[in-house]
Amino acid sequence: MIRISVDAMGGDFGPEITIAGAAIAQKRFPEIRFIFYGVASAVEPVLKRYPELASASTFIATETYTRMDEKPSQALRNGRGKSSMWKAIEAVKNDEADACVSAGNTGALMAMSYFCLRMMEEADRPGIAGVWPTLRGESIVLDIGATIGASSDQLVDLAVMGAGMFRALYNVKRPSVGLLNIGVEEVKGLDEIKQAGMMLREIGLDGLEYKGFVEGNDIGKGTVDVVVTEGFSGNIALKAAEGTARQMAQILREAMSSSWLTKLGYLFSISAFRQLKQKMDPGRVNGGVLLGLNGVVIKSHGGTDADGFASALRVGYEMVNNKLLEKIAADLRHFHDKKPELLERGTHAGHD
Amino acid sequence: MIRISVDAMGGDFGPEITIAGAAIAQKRFPEIRFIFYGVASAVEPVLKRYPELASASTFIATETYTRMDEKPSQALRNGRGKSSMWKAIEAVKNDEADACVSAGNTGALMAMSYFCLRMMEEADRPGIAGVWPTLRGESIVLDIGATIGASSDQLVDLAVMGAGMFRALYNVKRPSVGLLNIGVEEVKGLDEIKQAGMMLREIGLDGLEYKGFVEGNDIGKGTVDVVVTEGFSGNIALKAAEGTARQMAQILREAMSSSWLTKLGYLFSISAFRQLKQKMDPGRVNGGVLLGLNGVVIKSHGGTDADGFASALRVGYEMVNNKLLEKIAADLRHFHDKKPELLERGTHAGHD
Repeated sequence: MIRISVDAMGGDFGPEITIAGAAIAQKRFPEIRFIFYGVASAVEPVLKRYPELASASTFIATETYTRMDEKPSQALRNGRGKSSMWKAIEAVKNDEADACVSAGNTGALMAMSYFCLRMMEEADRPGIAGVWPTLRGESIVLDIGATIGASSDQLVDLAVMGAGMFRALYNVKRPSVGLLNIGVEEVKGLDEIKQAGMMLREIGLDGLEYKGFVEGNDIGKGTVDVVVTEGFSGNIALKAAEGTARQMAQILREAMSSSWLTKLGYLFSISAFRQLKQKMDPGRVNGGVLLGLNGVVIKSHGGTDADGFASALRVGYEMVNNKLLEKIAADLRHFHDKKPELLERGTHAGHD
Repeated sequence: MIRISVDAMGGDFGPEITIAGAAIAQKRFPEIRFIFYGVASAVEPVLKRYPELASASTFIATETYTRMDEKPSQALRNGRGKSSMWKAIEAVKNDEADACVSAGNTGALMAMSYFCLRMMEEADRPGIAGVWPTLRGESIVLDIGATIGASSDQLVDLAVMGAGMFRALYNVKRPSVGLLNIGVEEVKGLDEIKQAGMMLREIGLDGLEYKGFVEGNDIGKGTVDVVVTEGFSGNIALKAAEGTARQMAQILREAMSSSWLTKLGYLFSISAFRQLKQKMDPGRVNGGVLLGLNGVVIKSHGGTDADGFASALRVGYEMVNNKLLEKIAADLRHFHDKKPELLERGTHAGHD
C-alpha cells in the first residue's frame, strides 16, 4: 500500500479535477490509498460521485485552503496548521502519507513544504525537477523552481537528486547528466558550472553518467536524461520553450483555418496534430518534484485536467515505490564523503 | 550611398551565399556599395557570375580567412591584420565602410570587433542583439551574445541600445522595453535586475517606454518590443526556444508522413506550413547586431541562405540609414547624465 495525501482544493479547478484525477490513478494503481484534504462543502459532493474511490480513501475536512494568488508569506500566515495544502504536507511529516500531491500555488507549496518538512540532512538547497518532453522521450530538468543561483556543490547535489529521480521514474541504472551552459567547450560559462563539471567528472558517482556541458537546444533534443541548472536560467529556459510551443501552435492553428483547402487538409491530418499535441503536452508527464526535502512532494500544473493530475499522482507513486528519498540520500552521502578526497587531489594538481 | 564591408568568406557556404545575398540586397537597396573581402580564388569566380553587382562593388583580396571552428584567441592570432573578417571590420574603423556584415564564427567576430573597434565611450559592455519572431511581429532580445552577467547599469545600457536598434529597424518612437526575470512581481529576481528596473522606471528616458519585468514565455508572445537580459540567460532562452521549434517541426514532419491520409492532408495544407515556416524562420530577419562598439557590425547566421544573408545586409543598411550609433550614444549620455540625480534621490528615499 502507498499512501498519497492530496490537497484536493489546489489548482485552477479544485476538487472537480483532483478527485477525478485520483479516480483515474486509483484504477491504474489500486494499491494507492488517498487521503484528501479540503473544505467539506467543496470536496464531499464531488467525492460522492466516485463511490469506489471514496470507499478506499480518507477525507479530512480543513477549515480553509491556500488560494492560487496568495504570496508564499501570506499563504504561510493564513494557512499554516490549517489549510488543505498545509495539512496534506503535514501528513507526510507525521508519516500518515508517503507522498503529497498538490496542483496549488507553487510558491506557497515550496514555502510550506520547506517549513514543514525541512531539508534532508544531506542537501542544503531545495529544487524543483520537471519532466520535459524531448525528441528521444523525456528528460528531467532541474532546478526549474526559480531558486536563484547555485554553488558548484549545490549543482552536483541537483545532479545527484535529478539522476535519482530519473532512475525512480524510468528504471535506468545510470542516467546521463549534463550541466546547462552557454557552450559545450570546457572553458566557457560560470565558474560554479565549470567547478561542478570538474567534480562530476572526477568523482565518478555510481548513480549517474556525467556527459559534460549541454546547451539550451539540447534539452528538446533529449541529449541527456538529466539537465542540471540553477533556478533562474532553468525557469527562463522552461518558459521560453513553453512560449515557443504555444506560439507555433497558435500560428499553425491560424494558418490551418486560413482557407477551405487548409481546413480540409487539417481534417485529413488531424491524427498528426493529435500526435504533436500528445508529444509536446507537459500534462502527459505532469508533475514537478520538490527535491531535497524530508518527504516527497509533487507539484502538478495548476491548469491541468484529470488525466494530467492522475499523471502527477503516478509520479508520486513511482517516487515512493522506487524509494527515491533513500536513494537520493545515499547518493548525496556518497558525494559528500568523496568530496574531501577530490578537493585534496584538485589542490595537489594545482600545485604541480 | 551606404558602404557595407562584407566578410565574403564567412558562414558555412562562403562566397556562394554571401555574394548571392549581396546581389539580392543590391537590387532592393541600390544605394548600397559593397566592399568584399576574401581569398581571391574563392570569391572572384562567384563574383563574375553577378556582373551588375561586381561593377558596383569593390573586391579586396585577403591572404587568409577566419575558420568557423577557430577559437576567438586563435582567430585573433591567425587573422589579425590579414583575414577577410578582420579586414572587413577594419574597413569600418578606417571609415572605408559604414557597417560590416559577416556570417562567420561569432566568437571570433566579437573578439575582433572588440579589439579593432573598441567600445564606444558611453558603453562599458558589448552585447549582441537578435531579432526574435513573435506572435505580434518581431522583438529584439539582447544580450544573446553569451557575455555572462551584467550590472544594473549595464542592463540599462542594454535597454537603451536595444531600444535604439528597435527604433532604427522599425521606425517606432518609443519602443516598449521589459527586463527578463523569473516573475513579473517587483520583489522577485536578481538584485541587479530589480535595481535596473528601478532606474528605468524612475529615469524616464525619451527613447523607450519601460514596461517592467517579463518572463520567458513573454518573448514569443511579443509582450514588449525589446527584451533585456544578461548574456547567460539570453543564450539559454534563445537556444531553448530554437530547440523547441526544431523539436515541434520534427514531430510534425514525422506525424504528417505517418499515413496516406496525413500525407494527403499535408498536400492540402502546404500553404499553412509555409506560413508557419516563414513566421518562425530566424533567417527572415537574420542578423544579430553587435552593440556598444564604435561601429556597426552585423552577425548573420552561419548556416543562412542567400535570402537570409540579404536580410542581414538589410539590417546593416537600416542601422546606418537610421543613424543607430549616434542615437544610441546620445541616449546613453542622457542616461548617464541623469543617473547621479536619480541615485541621489534613491539615497534620500533610503534614508527616509
